[in-house]
Amino acid sequence: MAASFEVEAALFLFRLRRLDAAFHAALHQHYRVLDFFASNKPLQDFLAAAAALPDPPRAAIVVGGRSVRVDAAFLDAAPSLAFVFSTGAGVDHIDLHECARRGVAVTNSGNVYSVDVADHAVGMLIDVLRRISAAERFVRGGLWPAQGQYPLGTKVGGKRVGIIGLGNIGSQIAKRLEAFGCVIYYNSRKQKDSVSSKYFSSVHDLAAESDVLVVACALSKDTRHIVNKDVLEALGKDGIIINIGRGANIDEMELVRALKEGRIAGAGLDVFENEPKVPTELFSMDNVVMTNHVAVFTSESRAEVRDTTISNLEAFFSGEPLLTPLVLPR
Amino acid sequence: MAASFEVEAALFLFRLRRLDAAFHAALHQHYRVLDFFASNKPLQDFLAAAAALPDPPRAAIVVGGRSVRVDAAFLDAAPSLAFVFSTGAGVDHIDLHECARRGVAVTNSGNVYSVDVADHAVGMLIDVLRRISAAERFVRGGLWPAQGQYPLGTKVGGKRVGIIGLGNIGSQIAKRLEAFGCVIYYNSRKQKDSVSSKYFSSVHDLAAESDVLVVACALSKDTRHIVNKDVLEALGKDGIIINIGRGANIDEMELVRALKEGRIAGAGLDVFENEPKVPTELFSMDNVVMTNHVAVFTSESRAEVRDTTISNLEAFFSGEPLLTPLVLPR
Repeated sequence: MAASFEVEAALFLFRLRRLDAAFHAALHQHYRVLDFFASNKPLQDFLAAAAALPDPPRAAIVVGGRSVRVDAAFLDAAPSLAFVFSTGAGVDHIDLHECARRGVAVTNSGNVYSVDVADHAVGMLIDVLRRISAAERFVRGGLWPAQGQYPLGTKVGGKRVGIIGLGNIGSQIAKRLEAFGCVIYYNSRKQKDSVSSKYFSSVHDLAAESDVLVVACALSKDTRHIVNKDVLEALGKDGIIINIGRGANIDEMELVRALKEGRIAGAGLDVFENEPKVPTELFSMDNVVMTNHVAVFTSESRAEVRDTTISNLEAFFSGEPLLTPLVLPR
Repeated sequence: MAASFEVEAALFLFRLRRLDAAFHAALHQHYRVLDFFASNKPLQDFLAAAAALPDPPRAAIVVGGRSVRVDAAFLDAAPSLAFVFSTGAGVDHIDLHECARRGVAVTNSGNVYSVDVADHAVGMLIDVLRRISAAERFVRGGLWPAQGQYPLGTKVGGKRVGIIGLGNIGSQIAKRLEAFGCVIYYNSRKQKDSVSSKYFSSVHDLAAESDVLVVACALSKDTRHIVNKDVLEALGKDGIIINIGRGANIDEMELVRALKEGRIAGAGLDVFENEPKVPTELFSMDNVVMTNHVAVFTSESRAEVRDTTISNLEAFFSGEPLLTPLVLPR
């Protein structure tokens, strides 16, 4: 069965850094691969060269983040394209409406990442509240024998945790934190009938009632800077913010300012507005935990993404139903 | 009612570092306090001076750790003593049999700490598996823009977690980790009828079947070095160890050796054999998370311990039943 699509071309539009040799090998085994980042061409030149091939690529694989945007200009330059696969969970880099209008199918990796992202969010939440990374620096710095005393953390249990976005990831976070005795509140586009947690239609009101605010929503024009100066103000000086959504869900300049001025108590951030740039002011703050957009990444999830990618490509090229469709083929 | 014991003397036998001003104020308000660490005397001299007072102290407050041991020699030197309160959860520094033999009542702070210790254990477990502190160092060191790639962590869900000691703390750890989809195994002195998790009568066999081994037992002569070279060998090169019990529950020299030689995959350690000394070899290991014996400490638990201490002292001096007795008064 593989024979039918072994000669199909697939555009690669991701950076190598997060995709392992096994993934590359699996792709190259089945497809003729055009690798954007390896080509060292500007994107428009790369797409033009691909479009000019006798057998132009019908599928593209992209990662999230800011490097490549699949928008109208991209689709104009790649008229042969009928399928876009995003290896990430978020698809804010893909214009779904434009794809739908043109009959370009879109799938992502589905819920492969949800539990890993939820685990990471909870890990960062415990870390910030209980000051684990800060204590780590204290011990590694050899300060324990000399100084002994270390600022106390605060209890996890009983904390009111407001989750922005109660989708797959947000629900998994809620499930975990309930086992710690946290009280879960949430905001989402609509109240969910199946959920007993208290719903807030306003993020501002959610923040005002929460000890910890967790950003777990997708990035869209509606959720850009959903945590702004007013929301940070409502969260208040004892409030903690955790972000495993997208950097631009928070007005980062305002967040840094609030942390500097002690207007919020701490933050756990896996994502930033201008990755890989992180505001350097954060580096000296003991009440901030930062990771490099790794909440989605475990060796197990990478293997699952590889399998999901290959399976979706196989389905597409075989004319079978896509496994995790966001925009159906025409 | 307070009047009856306002003039009672209580021996202080703890260091100040973990007890706040409010605790001191509360004690000094009700008691004539003899403070060992403030006295700058050797312990035997301090106890001899206290015993020579016209109104020698009947109660002692001690913390855990290695600084003061309430053993036969201690009790010989403090013949007026009828009550010992330990502010810690562990009482490995108190000879309970000797206290019982002499009719000295003993209480500790009960289960005040259990949930905080469990939270800290789970936080360290996520941290080691998902490499949060390591990523933190990576980001803070400014390496993200330059290096991008960072070694992947491993998934929390599905891991087989073997807990040594399924008491209050161990049970709370199990409850939390079940919400992450971990499979819980345990070892304890006896199998517990109320628990459905798989029981192992041998720590070696538990380690052999576990991905993560969590030490959550008290320290006694039976549990000293309960994790020894053989157990580490059984845990194996992909195994992780978490210790929130006592440092001496693990043969630390063997642990360091196993980590150095890659015979286990990582560790999360809140306790060490010779606190505040930490083996310096660990400082350069990215797969180790270390905190300075803070799993029990939150601002909330400290307030609770203060209240529990005062309440137990009040009960003792009033002849009322003790709140959290380990050894009953004669």
